[in-house]
Amino acid sequence: MPYRAPLADFRFLLSEVVGFAQVAATERFAEATPETVEAVLGEAGKLCEEVLAPLQRSGDIHPARLENGVVRTSPGFAEGYRAIVEGGWVSIAASPDHGGMGLPMTVTTAVNEMMASACLSLQLNPLMTQGQIEALEHHASDALKALYLPKLVSGEWCGTMNLTEPQAGSDVGALRTRAEPLGDGSYAVTGQKIYISWADNDFTGNVCHLVLARLPDGAPGTKGISLFLVPKFLPDAEGNPGKRNSLSVVSLEHKMGLHGSPTAVMDYDGAVGWLLGAPHRGMAAMFTMMNNARLGVGVQGIGVAEAATQAALGYALERRQGGAGTIIEHPDVRRMLAVMKAETFSARAIALACAVAIDMARATGSAEWQARAALLTPIAKAYGTAMGVEVADLGVQVHGGTGFIEATGAAQYLRDVRVTAIYEGTNGIQAMDLVGRKMMDGGEAAFRLLQEVQDAAEVARHGLPDLAGDVWNAAEALWEATEALVAQGATDRNAGAVPYLRAFARVLGAHYHLTAAAADPARLALARVAIRRLLPEHAALLAQVREGAEGLFALSAEDLAA
Amino acid sequence: MPYRAPLADFRFLLSEVVGFAQVAATERFAEATPETVEAVLGEAGKLCEEVLAPLQRSGDIHPARLENGVVRTSPGFAEGYRAIVEGGWVSIAASPDHGGMGLPMTVTTAVNEMMASACLSLQLNPLMTQGQIEALEHHASDALKALYLPKLVSGEWCGTMNLTEPQAGSDVGALRTRAEPLGDGSYAVTGQKIYISWADNDFTGNVCHLVLARLPDGAPGTKGISLFLVPKFLPDAEGNPGKRNSLSVVSLEHKMGLHGSPTAVMDYDGAVGWLLGAPHRGMAAMFTMMNNARLGVGVQGIGVAEAATQAALGYALERRQGGAGTIIEHPDVRRMLAVMKAETFSARAIALACAVAIDMARATGSAEWQARAALLTPIAKAYGTAMGVEVADLGVQVHGGTGFIEATGAAQYLRDVRVTAIYEGTNGIQAMDLVGRKMMDGGEAAFRLLQEVQDAAEVARHGLPDLAGDVWNAAEALWEATEALVAQGATDRNAGAVPYLRAFARVLGAHYHLTAAAADPARLALARVAIRRLLPEHAALLAQVREGAEGLFALSAEDLAA
Repeated sequence: MPYRAPLADFRFLLSEVVGFAQVAATERFAEATPETVEAVLGEAGKLCEEVLAPLQRSGDIHPARLENGVVRTSPGFAEGYRAIVEGGWVSIAASPDHGGMGLPMTVTTAVNEMMASACLSLQLNPLMTQGQIEALEHHASDALKALYLPKLVSGEWCGTMNLTEPQAGSDVGALRTRAEPLGDGSYAVTGQKIYISWADNDFTGNVCHLVLARLPDGAPGTKGISLFLVPKFLPDAEGNPGKRNSLSVVSLEHKMGLHGSPTAVMDYDGAVGWLLGAPHRGMAAMFTMMNNARLGVGVQGIGVAEAATQAALGYALERRQGGAGTIIEHPDVRRMLAVMKAETFSARAIALACAVAIDMARATGSAEWQARAALLTPIAKAYGTAMGVEVADLGVQVHGGTGFIEATGAAQYLRDVRVTAIYEGTNGIQAMDLVGRKMMDGGEAAFRLLQEVQDAAEVARHGLPDLAGDVWNAAEALWEATEALVAQGATDRNAGAVPYLRAFARVLGAHYHLTAAAADPARLALARVAIRRLLPEHAALLAQVREGAEGLFALSAEDLAA
Repeated sequence: MPYRAPLADFRFLLSEVVGFAQVAATERFAEATPETVEAVLGEAGKLCEEVLAPLQRSGDIHPARLENGVVRTSPGFAEGYRAIVEGGWVSIAASPDHGGMGLPMTVTTAVNEMMASACLSLQLNPLMTQGQIEALEHHASDALKALYLPKLVSGEWCGTMNLTEPQAGSDVGALRTRAEPLGDGSYAVTGQKIYISWADNDFTGNVCHLVLARLPDGAPGTKGISLFLVPKFLPDAEGNPGKRNSLSVVSLEHKMGLHGSPTAVMDYDGAVGWLLGAPHRGMAAMFTMMNNARLGVGVQGIGVAEAATQAALGYALERRQGGAGTIIEHPDVRRMLAVMKAETFSARAIALACAVAIDMARATGSAEWQARAALLTPIAKAYGTAMGVEVADLGVQVHGGTGFIEATGAAQYLRDVRVTAIYEGTNGIQAMDLVGRKMMDGGEAAFRLLQEVQDAAEVARHGLPDLAGDVWNAAEALWEATEALVAQGATDRNAGAVPYLRAFARVLGAHYHLTAAAADPARLALARVAIRRLLPEHAALLAQVREGAEGLFALSAEDLAA
């Protein structure tokens, strides 16, 4: 079954569930009328269905290769990238100042999801560029902006993020890459970076690397890190790619999935780069990029969940077993498909709500919207990707024996999406961000959101008393757990972080399903699946949160190794 | 970190948790003294650590290939197989009448787990042969026994199972392979079979296929199916491999994992075979083999869980991030490792308890033990394999970015183990077996087991009041859910089958952890993880069971496709 863009779901979620009308009502996003959004999503959906989806298997079967230092991409990827660029899809959220469409992040989020469904490994390329555009818009000098942004926005050049080093993964502060001032405003960057997605390709005129490195006077740890823009080719006076910079792709990783996306070890050997933002403020600058990249990665998970659900459904509607009917008539198969569908909806609603908060924060400067966006980002990332993995896993199971055969494609979804729970900050890091940094307000942003959940449940109680009651009670339990959490020490909080994040997502997902059912009776059956079958897990998760760290550390490393 | 056989855990589980002393006290298994068992497991562990574990990556990197109709196995597999055979590990449970050791299934289960940890794809070969030996012991004529059993028991020949056809997967009754009597007591078998594990190899003198087929007067559906033994080479008068039979390996599948195990499409073109058991009674004969094969597959999941846990632990003890310590000091990493360890223990205890029940049923002929074995088999299979997948998935996550890189091996565990939740009856089929066939006694066997769980909790209450109370209450909730379940119609039961099975496993796992903690205070910390963090999920699962099928079918196929 070929991929079909879920345009009706986007339309419904934007208009009835996540309140996109508020975004369109702002001056900044006044152009994002329903008609425009409809047209944009329709065009993007067409590209994904017709051009990108056929590349999905190609990337897996013919992985990107390194030949004499040059990355050769999978067959069709160059053409697929060209189609993305020609449609302007790299940069629909970028400022019109440099050629972007200036559309809301909410619309970008929907477009990114469709591209991720269609061909995850290729979509990762423009996703990285989107983050780089944002980092440059916020932190680059006017000269750098003028030189780089038009090329990145047009897609002529693409961008990467270089954070990780062998000894510095989640602990970015341990990095050793160094940057020496060259006296002309540029720097010589030297060091090795690993896990660089789309470090090179054979279809863009240049590749621009954002590299975290330490200046000679940089303090140890994260406080001494600066951010540099290091292009593969140094632009000449006209802004065209000139001299080759002193950087190279050392090797490509052999990965579990996402074969179409080259993941490189990069060597910088006195490569020329330019500082972005203030010296030693690289982490802050990188976070500008990473926050939205985190939402983007969450959306990758949702895209795969959608595609895996469609594929499993297609199989279940065709496969005959046991009598005359197809396996969709089997209760357990229908259970799996219903769960896949319900989880995908929940994760999508959370991601779109996060995007709406980002848009509102940008359009209004409101601290409350800013806090909402900050709160929802780790949830959108971790839950979107966890659901990507779980839904793809269910997709394999629906396929039975054929699910384990690669030609079916079901296994590829699982292999591809698995990394999304790891990169851009592991889901454990996301959860610690949620219970740490995002609770430094004493839980205020969380309580504000939970109040909205309970208010909505009160309204829905008239028509849907049982479901609304379940959601209200779960929100209450989460509220109490949040109060307890903010009073815990960091170790206890971190021990419960992953279950807490999942419980939060369970409550939010149920809330959006309830909102959907209240708006459209056709959505009631799916809401019932989400609220009656999936929401109860929140209690088991919050029990883990209450346990804190003590029990875990009672189990010594020796006990574990016994 | 190289694999280390968990001998202390086996010793503890056998003596303190699953009551192996009862087995050793029977006349049939009187030779299985603690000293003998210790020696056997020690020897098997040595083989697994030293000979088999080094083959694990080889099977993945150099998959079995089909060359001009001949299967070429992965480098080292022939030598590994020879070592298994020389140790007598294929057939430690087989009857001494044909050269087996006659040891209990409980000991076989521990040995199989270690071999599965060390090299899953190679271990699948003797696992299939074990099932075939059992089928022949029960159903073959004396002449067939005399001809085949010594060769299978010695490992000189190996065995396969041929059930699935393109149109007949979980619905075995739809098979089309036909068997025509040749007049001399043999049959000509014609048809195509798919997903045949270890259909051929380059290291055994013969390959003996058990093939389900329909006789000319066989009724449609499962009632008209017979079981045939169809060897690759027809034995001559001396029992040596003679003329090539009319069967061939058509192709090998390209799979998500388990690359070292060749999975074939087999063509039978009038191949000569012999009937096993009565005509049209093939399903019953096959189930003799499949029940224990199901336990064996559950144990595959546990073996991978153990190996993945050891690998993750090894990584966590070495990897430094954030300050001076290793990542095992991070609460979320420790949480993941503790969960991996607790789940592996639970699944292992359930599998060993199932094996004890099988042994007791065989040794005593007791219907109660028979019912206990029948009840635990689908739980051991589905939970063992589900935990294999979940623990391997956590193993990838503990590894962070390196988990997605194939050379680490963490991803291979996940890719390899994924099929265990599908083959030998999908986990959905296992769950339907549990709530259907295994509840045809009105839940009697389940209630008897839950009574034991509650009795043990009562005893444990003195020393461990909180944990014992949690287990008692969960067993009570499961008891009530079981009463409701047996009153439900088949569709409702099947809709809740998978959550019900998992809830049952949660309660049993907690029970065995409690038993362990009561016996040895050093086991308390892990028991607390299982009971306080993992057991609470049972309530959410039972909520799904109560929902029945109505809500799922309220969601039409069109709703799902919308």
